[in-house]
Amino acid sequence: MSSSDLLLDMNQKALNLLQEDADKIEKLIEVQMGNLTTRQCPLYEEVLDTQMYGLSREIDFAIRAGLISEAPGKQILSKLERNLAQLYEALNKKSNP
Amino acid sequence: MSSSDLLLDMNQKALNLLQEDADKIEKLIEVQMGNLTTRQCPLYEEVLDTQMYGLSREIDFAIRAGLISEAPGKQILSKLERNLAQLYEALNKKSNP
Repeated sequence: MSSSDLLLDMNQKALNLLQEDADKIEKLIEVQMGNLTTRQCPLYEEVLDTQMYGLSREIDFAIRAGLISEAPGKQILSKLERNLAQLYEALNKKSNP
Repeated sequence: MSSSDLLLDMNQKALNLLQEDADKIEKLIEVQMGNLTTRQCPLYEEVLDTQMYGLSREIDFAIRAGLISEAPGKQILSKLERNLAQLYEALNKKSNP
């Protein structure tokens, strides 16, 4: 394998791993969205915040290590942040209708 | 650059980055150790825990992405964990002399 192929390969692998981790958080957000009408678990926000922090550290490291470029990394994170903002907005509406 | 040279290069870069992040935590532990005789800041443990979690996510990602092998990654973390255990032991002795 040539070194440019290797780099492409590692870049793709890194992006797949980061997307997998992002998908897990996405799933957590969806579950909590689905639970809006039932009771609210206060630990959920804590778990989501911790997971978001962990993913941001992974992405930051992948960029610094030259595995991925900045744009796709930031994109994964900002998409999640938008979904998270929607969740918090929905939670706010529920507690202050 | 051959692909094996590139891999070696990326491996070294990744290890250096992880060690840099570990050194920052090491510094936090040292500062808190030095503060034992003065007042204890309760937020310190929280910050250290968060930083340790962030580093463990970076190391886990680096292993999964094929950047580093498992042994050196676990080594960086376990060295910090030993120092952290010493700090907590010293803090305990101080509050229960």
